[in-house]
Amino acid sequence: MDQVVENIYLLVIVTLISVLQNAFFALKVEKECKSSNTSAFERVSCANRNCMDAYSTFLAVMWCAGLCLSQAPAAFAGIIYLVVRQKYFVGYMGQTSQSTPGYLFGKRILFFLLMMCIVGIFNYLLMRHYRSDYKEYVETITSAASALLLLP
Amino acid sequence: MDQVVENIYLLVIVTLISVLQNAFFALKVEKECKSSNTSAFERVSCANRNCMDAYSTFLAVMWCAGLCLSQAPAAFAGIIYLVVRQKYFVGYMGQTSQSTPGYLFGKRILFFLLMMCIVGIFNYLLMRHYRSDYKEYVETITSAASALLLLP
Amino acid sequence: MDQVVENIYLLVIVTLISVLQNAFFALKVEKECKSSNTSAFERVSCANRNCMDAYSTFLAVMWCAGLCLSQAPAAFAGIIYLVVRQKYFVGYMGQTSQSTPGYLFGKRILFFLLMMCIVGIFNYLLMRHYRSDYKEYVETITSAASALLLLP
Repeated sequence: MDQVVENIYLLVIVTLISVLQNAFFALKVEKECKSSNTSAFERVSCANRNCMDAYSTFLAVMWCAGLCLSQAPAAFAGIIYLVVRQKYFVGYMGQTSQSTPGYLFGKRILFFLLMMCIVGIFNYLLMRHYRSDYKEYVETITSAASALLLLP
Repeated sequence: MDQVVENIYLLVIVTLISVLQNAFFALKVEKECKSSNTSAFERVSCANRNCMDAYSTFLAVMWCAGLCLSQAPAAFAGIIYLVVRQKYFVGYMGQTSQSTPGYLFGKRILFFLLMMCIVGIFNYLLMRHYRSDYKEYVETITSAASALLLLP
Repeated sequence: MDQVVENIYLLVIVTLISVLQNAFFALKVEKECKSSNTSAFERVSCANRNCMDAYSTFLAVMWCAGLCLSQAPAAFAGIIYLVVRQKYFVGYMGQTSQSTPGYLFGKRILFFLLMMCIVGIFNYLLMRHYRSDYKEYVETITSAASALLLLP
């Protein structure tokens, strides 16, 4: 079983951090739920719901990318997604801004993870049918490309 | 790690398609969010929420069925579920129909996947305790049974 | 593939039970949706939504704990979580109680599963870098500690 853990431990760590962040969001909702400020409660509840709606999708795509290609860039993209999500949540709760951010966030990162999955599957099919294995090249390119996510 | 990919690549492909569909739903919500048509926004938002509520359940049951028994019928049932979900979403957004479809959809497919899981677990326990392995028969029957999902 | 099933079959069983429970919740919502009692529908819909919001988090943390450390205590904690969730849902629907339970539930169990993940990852890293393996001790302690979850 330790071989399995070897291939997923970075993904597990990112998942744990995301769970802690979920708990933070939920505590905020719980706190506002008890206060009497309806507009603040509605805002925080809506932000939490939007984050939760996207959460399953994020987990699915991160784990697929990590299993099919390589875990380090997937976990790195996951961390960046969590940072973006934190910013989104805080931005949603902001008192002064009347205009809330939209429904979607982290599109670029999810797109990157999706690309990783597709490349991984494609590489696997190539290897199976034509015995040509580009996995090492692809992993190097992916690791380099993941740094591009840091661009604002 | 390539052995792992061999056993899950069909499931990953279905997951990717479902993620693309989620993105399509989310873009619809984002678009209606900006327009001023409140009733249309409410309808599309409700349809999206119902789909998202069931999404984790669907993913969990599809992956369990694929891992415990065999991936091809599970992925096939997953594809059909996505088609049903697309129909449900489009039906929910329909302008003319006042009566929206209910909260649930794709019950038959989820039930089929659930049965696959139970059969897979049962087969594993039988094999472990009595050394009797019916996996091949079960896989053949499952593949044949999955064609029944195509019936309207 | 049977080795894989051996390490996850308890987790799969708990996942199946949770899916059945989700179906039970969804059927309740569907039923109230058709009746004309708006306040009851709102209550059951809200309870269902709160349960669904936490569902992805629960699945993620249970599977991580089961994969990283050992499946039996993780599955046991999962079962207890499902019992707590059932109580929460029924309590939310209660006619007489005006005060609904809060947004969160099962905090202690999720915290226990989170601890299991962290210990598992930590143990793996220790083993990898220092060749010291405490996994057996940790598993025994975890199994014993999971019994503490039964305390009210």
